[in-house]
Amino acid sequence: MFDLLPAWALKALVRLTEIFPGFHRLVNRIAINRSVGVTRTRPHPWSTVHDYVSWDSLTDMRYSARHLPARNIPGQPETARVADLFRRPAGGQRLSAKSTCLFPAFAQYLTDGFIRTRMPNSSAGESEEIRLQNTSNHQIDLSPLYGRTREQTRALRLMSEAKGERGRLKSQVLAGEEWAPFLYDGPAIRAEFAVLDPPLGRDKIEAAPALRDRIFAFGGDRANSVPQVSMMNTLFLREHNRIAGMIERAHPDWDDERVFQTARNVVIVMFIKLVVEEYINHISPVPIRLMADPRVAWRAPWNRPNWITTEFSLLYRWHSLMPDEIRWGTRTVPIHATFFDNAPLLEGGLARGFADMSAQATGVLGPRNTADALLGIEESSIRQGRLARLDTYAAYRALVGLKPPRRFEDISTDPDVLRILRGLYPSPDLVEFYPGLFAEDPTPNTPLPPLIRTMVAVDAFSQALTNPLLSEHVWRAETFTAEGMAAIEGTATLADLVARNAPGGAGGARIAMTQEGWEHSW
Amino acid sequence: MFDLLPAWALKALVRLTEIFPGFHRLVNRIAINRSVGVTRTRPHPWSTVHDYVSWDSLTDMRYSARHLPARNIPGQPETARVADLFRRPAGGQRLSAKSTCLFPAFAQYLTDGFIRTRMPNSSAGESEEIRLQNTSNHQIDLSPLYGRTREQTRALRLMSEAKGERGRLKSQVLAGEEWAPFLYDGPAIRAEFAVLDPPLGRDKIEAAPALRDRIFAFGGDRANSVPQVSMMNTLFLREHNRIAGMIERAHPDWDDERVFQTARNVVIVMFIKLVVEEYINHISPVPIRLMADPRVAWRAPWNRPNWITTEFSLLYRWHSLMPDEIRWGTRTVPIHATFFDNAPLLEGGLARGFADMSAQATGVLGPRNTADALLGIEESSIRQGRLARLDTYAAYRALVGLKPPRRFEDISTDPDVLRILRGLYPSPDLVEFYPGLFAEDPTPNTPLPPLIRTMVAVDAFSQALTNPLLSEHVWRAETFTAEGMAAIEGTATLADLVARNAPGGAGGARIAMTQEGWEHSW
Repeated sequence: MFDLLPAWALKALVRLTEIFPGFHRLVNRIAINRSVGVTRTRPHPWSTVHDYVSWDSLTDMRYSARHLPARNIPGQPETARVADLFRRPAGGQRLSAKSTCLFPAFAQYLTDGFIRTRMPNSSAGESEEIRLQNTSNHQIDLSPLYGRTREQTRALRLMSEAKGERGRLKSQVLAGEEWAPFLYDGPAIRAEFAVLDPPLGRDKIEAAPALRDRIFAFGGDRANSVPQVSMMNTLFLREHNRIAGMIERAHPDWDDERVFQTARNVVIVMFIKLVVEEYINHISPVPIRLMADPRVAWRAPWNRPNWITTEFSLLYRWHSLMPDEIRWGTRTVPIHATFFDNAPLLEGGLARGFADMSAQATGVLGPRNTADALLGIEESSIRQGRLARLDTYAAYRALVGLKPPRRFEDISTDPDVLRILRGLYPSPDLVEFYPGLFAEDPTPNTPLPPLIRTMVAVDAFSQALTNPLLSEHVWRAETFTAEGMAAIEGTATLADLVARNAPGGAGGARIAMTQEGWEHSW
Repeated sequence: MFDLLPAWALKALVRLTEIFPGFHRLVNRIAINRSVGVTRTRPHPWSTVHDYVSWDSLTDMRYSARHLPARNIPGQPETARVADLFRRPAGGQRLSAKSTCLFPAFAQYLTDGFIRTRMPNSSAGESEEIRLQNTSNHQIDLSPLYGRTREQTRALRLMSEAKGERGRLKSQVLAGEEWAPFLYDGPAIRAEFAVLDPPLGRDKIEAAPALRDRIFAFGGDRANSVPQVSMMNTLFLREHNRIAGMIERAHPDWDDERVFQTARNVVIVMFIKLVVEEYINHISPVPIRLMADPRVAWRAPWNRPNWITTEFSLLYRWHSLMPDEIRWGTRTVPIHATFFDNAPLLEGGLARGFADMSAQATGVLGPRNTADALLGIEESSIRQGRLARLDTYAAYRALVGLKPPRRFEDISTDPDVLRILRGLYPSPDLVEFYPGLFAEDPTPNTPLPPLIRTMVAVDAFSQALTNPLLSEHVWRAETFTAEGMAAIEGTATLADLVARNAPGGAGGARIAMTQEGWEHSW
C-alpha cells in the first residue's frame, strides 16, 4: 500500500515513524494488517486430502492446506520444456543489487523449519503422491535446532543437572569453537541420535565419508544440506547454550528441564524477531521499519491457527538466488560442490562464514537464472504443482488482489521470457502457478517479484505473529525471565548474535542481508 | 448478566427477541460474548506438562491445558473423607424440578467426545500420572460416532460404491430398527474393529457374555458405558445414514468418499446446533433463546484454538445427576445394573428409550446426592484434582469473576454441607476445586450451580462456535449441499431427530431435556 505514495510523502512518513514511536507502532499495525488482509483468513476450507470440504480437510494437518481448490487444467506442456524458463544461460548469471548470500541462507533455514513437504522415499516404495503431505508442526518453532518431536528434542539435549550444564543442547568444541556433535560414528548414525529424522541426501552422504564425518546431529533433516544452513543452526545452538547459561546463573534453583524450556522460549522469540525485523525488512520495498510487535496480532481477525499451504511450499523455492559459485574463505567453489559439505564452514569458523556470505551478491530471483545443479528441483516443483492440481498463476494473482495478466507482457517485458512463455502456453491466463511466480518482472527495492512477495507477506506475518509465545497471556517476563526479555530486546540482527557467539566476535566484518552501499531508490 | 435484570425488564427483553429477529441476534451475540468474556482467552499459558510456560505447554496437546497454574496446597484432608460430601444418604435422593434423564444422557454423550482423560491401564503398568494426559481431538467432532482417527473412521464405514450404500456407516437391522454392528464375535473383538479404542470396562464386559454380546462397535470407547449413551450414538448413526442417502440421491455422481464426508459435515453441525439450542438453553437460567449463530465467532477475540483443560475434565463429572434407579420400558433397575448393558435399549427400541428418559426426573446436581455406585469415581476425581495440583475453589471463583467465599455460608446454606465442609477445611479459601464446585447452593431455573455453570459457558461457546465447519469461509452451502443445509435448518431438537429416525417416529411421546409442565420462575 505505502508503495503507492509519491516519494516525498513516503519520505515524510518514514521520518515521522522515526520521530514518534507511537505513530510508528500504528503505521506498523496498519501495514501488517493490510499485508495479511489481501486474502481470506484461515481456516482454509481445503487441503490436499480431498477436493471438497471435509472434516479431514479441516483437521488433518499431515496434508497441506490450500488457498484455492483443486482444478484440472488440460493440455499442459511437458515439464522439461517448462523448466527451460528457469535455465540460467551459460555465463548469463544475473546478480542482485540488494541482497547478499546471507539472505537466501536465512530464508532456507527459516522455511526448512515449517515448509516440510514429505519427500518420496523410493526404496520404501513411496510414490510422488506423498508430496501432498507434510511433516510440519506448522509453527516457527526452530525445529532444525530443537527437532520436530519431544523425543528428538530429548536426544539433542545434554540432560544434565550439573552446574554449568543445565538446559544445554549437546555440543562439541573444535578449534576453540562450539559446534553440534557429529551425527555419525564411522558408517553408522550414533545410537543416541537414532530418533532424529535422517538427513536428506542420506545416500549421498553415506557414500562419501568426507561428507559423512562432518554431518552434524541437528534437529532438522535439511539442516546439513548446505554449509550456509549449518552455519545458521550453529549460531542458534550457541545462542541457546549462552542463554541457558545466563538463565541458570540467574535461577540457580531451576532444574535442567526448566532452564532448557525457558531458554527455548527466549531463542524462538528472538528468531521470530529477526524474521520480521531483519529478514522481512530486507524484503520490503518500503523503507518503513516493520516491527515484530506481538500486540498487532492479539485482536487481529487473521489470528487463526497456522497451517502451511501447498502453494507456500512452492512459492518459497528460491533456487535462482543461488549463484553459480560461492566463496568460503579463500576457496571459490561451484555450488553443487557444497551440498552436504560442512568442511568450508568448519575450516573458516562461524564468524568467517557469516562475513563471507555477507560479502557476496546473491542471484536475482526470477526466470532464466537457476544454476544447472538445481534445475532438476525446478522441474520436480513444476510436477508437484500439477500433482496438487493448483489453479493458474492468474487465479492466484486475483486471489491476493493483484491484476491477473491479460497479455503475456503483463507478466514480463523480457523478450526471452516472453518467447518462452508464448511457446509454452496458449494464453496468459493458462500460465501455471509455479512458472508464473518466477516469470514476473522484478520491481524496485525488493528481491521478490510481486506475487511471491504478496503471498509471502500474508503468511510471514500471520504465521510469525500468531506464535503462541507472543500471545496475549504468554508474552510476559515470567515466560522468558527478566534476563531473557532483555536478551530479546537487545537483539535486532544476526550481526548481534554473531558478535556474542563467535570467539572474538565478528572481527569487524559486516554481517548483513543487504549489500554494503545499497541505497533505496526513491 | 441478564439474570440481574428485574423480572419485568427481562420479560420485555424476551418478548422483543421473539418479535425482532435482528434484535434477537444482537442479544444472542452479546450474551455469548459476555459468557466467554468472564476469563482470559486462549492460548492458555500452562498445561499439565510443566509448571511454567514451555513450548510443550503451548503445543503438546496430549497434555491437558489449565486455566490456572499448578499450586501446592499442603494439609489436604483424606480423599475418603472428602467423598463424604458427595455421598447420597440412604433414601435421601433429591430430584431435579427441571431436568429429565435426557439431560445427563446428552451431557455424557457430548463430553465423552472431547473430554478424554487418559485412564491408567494398570496391567500395562501405567500410573495415575497418566490422567494428566488426554486422547482428545479438542473439537466437537462426534468422535463417539466417527472415531478419533482416520483409521478408526474407515473401520466404522461401509466403504461401498454400490448405489444405496454410498457414504454409509456400517449398521445392522434388528427387529426392524437400525443399530451399529456388534463389536464382539464370541469372546473376541472382530478383526475389522481391531483399530477401534477398546471399550472402557473391557474386563467387566468380557467377563459377562450377556453384556459383551450386545456391545456395539462405536467410535468412542465410552459410548457403551450406559444404554443412554448408546441410545444417543445410535440416533446419530441413523441420522448419518439418512443424510448420506439424501446426499447420494441428490448427487448421483458423487463417490462413497464424498457422500460420507459431506454427510459427516452436516451431522457434526447439526449436533453443534443441538448443543447450543437445546442443551445450553436447557441449562441457561435466562429465558432468552440462545442460537448457534456461526457469525458470532468470526470476529470474536475468543476465536482461538480449542484445548481441553484439566479443570473442564473435572467440572463435567455430573454423577449426582444419576438417580438411584432408572426405568427402561417396564423394568426399573438400579443404575449400577445398567452399566455396559445395551439390553434395555435393544428390547424397547430407540424411540421408547428416548421417551423413557424424557419421562423421568434426574437427580439434583450438588452435594450429598451421588449414588453409591458412583462414589468411587467421585473419590478418584478428588485425587485427580490433587494430581493436577489445582488451585483452590476460591481461586477459580475469582478467575471467572465470581466472588470468592469469605465464609463457608457463602458456599452453601445447607447445614449438613456446612458441617462437612467445616470438618474438612480450616477455612473457606482452602476448599478444593472439585468439592467446592459441587458444594455450592443451587440457583433458580438451572440444573447447574454457579461456578460450574459459568465455567461450562466459557468452553461451551468458545469450543462449539469455533468449530472449523462454522468458520467464515467454510460455513456455506457448498460444504453441506443444499439438502444438508435444509436438514440443519430443519433440526432444533433431539425430538426432531427421533421423529425421523425411529420406525413410526416418536409415537406421540414427549422427548425433551426439560420436564413436562416445568415453568420458569420469575
